[in-house]
Amino acid sequence: MKALEEKILTEGTVLPGHILKVGSFLNHQIDVDFIMEMGKEITRLFENEKITKILTIETSGIPIAVGAAANMHVPVVFAKKNKTGNLSGDVYSTVVHSYTHGTDYTVVVSKEFLTENDNVLIIDDFLANGKALIGLIDILGQAGATVAGCAIAIEKGFQKGGDNLRADGIRVESLAIIDSMDDNSITFRAQ
Amino acid sequence: MKALEEKILTEGTVLPGHILKVGSFLNHQIDVDFIMEMGKEITRLFENEKITKILTIETSGIPIAVGAAANMHVPVVFAKKNKTGNLSGDVYSTVVHSYTHGTDYTVVVSKEFLTENDNVLIIDDFLANGKALIGLIDILGQAGATVAGCAIAIEKGFQKGGDNLRADGIRVESLAIIDSMDDNSITFRAQ
Repeated sequence: MKALEEKILTEGTVLPGHILKVGSFLNHQIDVDFIMEMGKEITRLFENEKITKILTIETSGIPIAVGAAANMHVPVVFAKKNKTGNLSGDVYSTVVHSYTHGTDYTVVVSKEFLTENDNVLIIDDFLANGKALIGLIDILGQAGATVAGCAIAIEKGFQKGGDNLRADGIRVESLAIIDSMDDNSITFRAQ
Repeated sequence: MKALEEKILTEGTVLPGHILKVGSFLNHQIDVDFIMEMGKEITRLFENEKITKILTIETSGIPIAVGAAANMHVPVVFAKKNKTGNLSGDVYSTVVHSYTHGTDYTVVVSKEFLTENDNVLIIDDFLANGKALIGLIDILGQAGATVAGCAIAIEKGFQKGGDNLRADGIRVESLAIIDSMDDNSITFRAQ
């Protein structure tokens, strides 16, 4: 998505440790008009799939998931990073390793919101090593739901999460794939 | 908002400790078409205010904030509950007490996303004792921004957070106000 690549170039900042800061429009401040455009593009990419539900993970996947769902007219389910007191009843759960924070965390989804009849599109803001997506795919497996694919805003193509998932037969569509980045330049993969 | 009251009655569950479970449409699974309708209603309520930005707090305020912002065509800023490694630079911060979890937590907003020129609408999913809203109002005060008001999906009117804020001169618009609830019945305040 050319408009996203341009926005990354104009508004993004590269920090040490291969961190791309896009807090001005994606994951702290949210440019909602732009998020809705991203949602339309995701809808177009998956228009031949009969998606019944979108699955994302808190927090910053939620706005993009809502933007896509507003176009697709399907519900969003967001996986929660901890089991809170408000989550009663049975849940599907999986453990995800966060390289950013150097810790493992448990992700849960209430069983009532995913069934074997669902054809689910997974949406997230970033894809690097793919651990969060693998966790969400695991949860869909527990539910017996179908994985229609994954739609990502920004993939760090120089880490291998996305390519590994594609090699495993998972459809992964990223609106922008960064093949390399440093202080001075960001190179996008041709799509 | 009559449609929200009806949805609470048909899909909500009252748990001990005055917990209202609305995970089927508001804060675990999200009925995005309905959230967009709520966003339109919030836009209508504040149509005479020149809102420049919406402020919410992660996690479950985000979908409603996005729904309203998609109608108002303004950005959303979501306050983060912990300072993460990805939040570089200066932040506004405040401490909020959570009655649900019995703990204090720190809320931060990067200074670059709120200025004294902003007229800000605060949006959240629930309002009970009002501690989260007071924290967000404190952050807006630190930024020198104007508080246009607060838009809430569900207010627990039997707790006094909303009425206390109104008594302090803050405009608080809740799409549904619950004056009492138990296992058998939910009573809404006439609006």
